[in-house]
Amino acid sequence: MPHHRHFAALLLLAQLLPAQPPAAPHFEFTANQRLAFPGNYREWIFLSAGRGMTYGPTADPHGPPQFDNVFVNPSAYRHFVKTGRWPEQAIFVLEIREAKSEGSINKGGEFQGAVTAIEVLVKDPKRFAATSGWGFFEFDKKQQPAAQLPKTATCYACHAQNGAVEHTFVQFYPTLLPIASAKNTLKSAAPGH
Amino acid sequence: MPHHRHFAALLLLAQLLPAQPPAAPHFEFTANQRLAFPGNYREWIFLSAGRGMTYGPTADPHGPPQFDNVFVNPSAYRHFVKTGRWPEQAIFVLEIREAKSEGSINKGGEFQGAVTAIEVLVKDPKRFAATSGWGFFEFDKKQQPAAQLPKTATCYACHAQNGAVEHTFVQFYPTLLPIASAKNTLKSAAPGH
Repeated sequence: MPHHRHFAALLLLAQLLPAQPPAAPHFEFTANQRLAFPGNYREWIFLSAGRGMTYGPTADPHGPPQFDNVFVNPSAYRHFVKTGRWPEQAIFVLEIREAKSEGSINKGGEFQGAVTAIEVLVKDPKRFAATSGWGFFEFDKKQQPAAQLPKTATCYACHAQNGAVEHTFVQFYPTLLPIASAKNTLKSAAPGH
Repeated sequence: MPHHRHFAALLLLAQLLPAQPPAAPHFEFTANQRLAFPGNYREWIFLSAGRGMTYGPTADPHGPPQFDNVFVNPSAYRHFVKTGRWPEQAIFVLEIREAKSEGSINKGGEFQGAVTAIEVLVKDPKRFAATSGWGFFEFDKKQQPAAQLPKTATCYACHAQNGAVEHTFVQFYPTLLPIASAKNTLKSAAPGH
């Protein structure tokens, strides 16, 4: 192939290829502003798990302790690793699962069973301008698209006051806490760090 | 651009682009057959977490209960979702973390602290022919490349006998267990499923 045609081909290549591979859309809103269930969140980045934590909206001090797993979309995770902050369109899933103690060869402790609740948090300063740029959602067992929780929901004030980085509980995410500390993005008022 | 040059450009494009993006290598062995520490495992697929489980090699019935998190490389995960079996070169990381109960606004339950142990399992029928195709590794705190654990280590017999799918404890991974059940890949002798 002559050089000039090679060059033309490379020009076309540059036009056809984005500078970086496009990120797969990780969530979407329906026409009536409901968040569609992010069905692939188990393939996102795992931030941490806890058990029986009482700060959560679904905690039941009289019920058996449950596990919680937290996931974030991969591009937001990579942004946080670089900057210690969350980009717009960051989305977090808090998955609550029952704790099981009897099963197979396990003779003590607990492992995870069925999902009992799914909560989602999205950062979008324009869409959620009325709630400081963050929107909370709860999904039912049918995983129907969910409307944003009203600004009176307790999660808004609690995350704003107690989240170590922005509205998020980075103090409970052991791989992110040292990053936020190094990038100096921890709120000075946040407890526990 | 004339059609024939457009076509030539597309031919070049086809030559330059692989059919699928090449998978990033997810682990490697050193020249002396030691497994290099898989430093990016926290970006792999999370399978589940437990707490205080006593079946593990690092369990201490007299020490405080710890959390365990299990991760698998993404391409092996996708293979399992399709087939209910693990491909060659599947690699699993079992990360043990201390459980913390006092911190920030958490008034009960436990969240995860520092890593206390890292165990790795690799499926490679050729490399590990002497141990049924599976190799176990433990990493020290310096994350130096690790030699395969000897075949006398208890993990080999325990995983072979008790793993619900091949050498893995799918019975404790709530998103994989229904897949293995549907694909009929659960061992008939495996307990607890």
